[in-house]
Amino acid sequence: MEIKYCVACGALTELRIPEDDDHNRAVCKKCGEIHYQNPKMVVGCIPELDGQILLCKRNIEPQKGLWTLPAGYLECNETVVEGAIRETKEETRADVEIIAPYRLCNIVFVSQIYFIFRAKLLTRDFGPTTESTDVRLFDEKDIPWDNIAFIVIKKTLQDFFEDRKKGAFSFETFDLR
Amino acid sequence: MEIKYCVACGALTELRIPEDDDHNRAVCKKCGEIHYQNPKMVVGCIPELDGQILLCKRNIEPQKGLWTLPAGYLECNETVVEGAIRETKEETRADVEIIAPYRLCNIVFVSQIYFIFRAKLLTRDFGPTTESTDVRLFDEKDIPWDNIAFIVIKKTLQDFFEDRKKGAFSFETFDLR
Repeated sequence: MEIKYCVACGALTELRIPEDDDHNRAVCKKCGEIHYQNPKMVVGCIPELDGQILLCKRNIEPQKGLWTLPAGYLECNETVVEGAIRETKEETRADVEIIAPYRLCNIVFVSQIYFIFRAKLLTRDFGPTTESTDVRLFDEKDIPWDNIAFIVIKKTLQDFFEDRKKGAFSFETFDLR
Repeated sequence: MEIKYCVACGALTELRIPEDDDHNRAVCKKCGEIHYQNPKMVVGCIPELDGQILLCKRNIEPQKGLWTLPAGYLECNETVVEGAIRETKEETRADVEIIAPYRLCNIVFVSQIYFIFRAKLLTRDFGPTTESTDVRLFDEKDIPWDNIAFIVIKKTLQDFFEDRKKGAFSFETFDLR
């Protein structure tokens, strides 16, 4: 998002490198307020029940109509675990228990850091929400690979099924540029 | 930071819960722009060379004059690994090679997510910078435990030395509230 006006005083900003800094920032021409912009964390999970994985069909852009894992922006004053549980509840109505961190993905071109946990789906009480038109459990063989919303999710799911076959999960990071 | 004025049009904002949301946001009274605020990631590392750990003495507030691991805010369009290497360079002049993710700490009350790696210090060419008045290698027995700048860093270092004794490092998360 372009920071055209100062959040502190409403005057116009200009893009320049402040003293002792080496990045361009939107600096207020009037009061000098420096506006820092930083990557956002997206937290989510892979909810598993009896070997099946819970996916949701997106009801919002981008990628409306495609399938994804429950995930969304981390809010202020919550932990990554709390955020992953909250997003899952919001998108699928379901409760999960977080097992362990599984993947961190740096999506460099949009400055998003995905942090995905493995999780145990605690209930079969799930279903559509304002954010998802459909919420369903899938066997590995039925995953709609051609209709997964984001590359980060597709790669995370592929890794997950590979690791599950091996019977060994570890936390790894990967980058998308 | 309080978002008093709209970054898009400079008009006053008001704090309210937008439609289909459940958090208060600064919403522009004139153009309706919604301003989201999210936690920031702080990335850093534990640089190790011949069993010693590199610490820096802070030259900036908060906690000016106390010792810490090299770490700082992740910037847009960089990965967590790139950020940890950059911050180490900026604060100590030293080059490091990242080994593995070690600790994620949710500092809930300030909405910061610390992400700390283990790293190999590649050089003895390190020293003071604008951000650090002193940069030094410490044996475990000489770590200035009473003068470590942040609890997150103290706990991470304590865990590190414990794990090193056991000869087994794993990635873990912890919370500070």
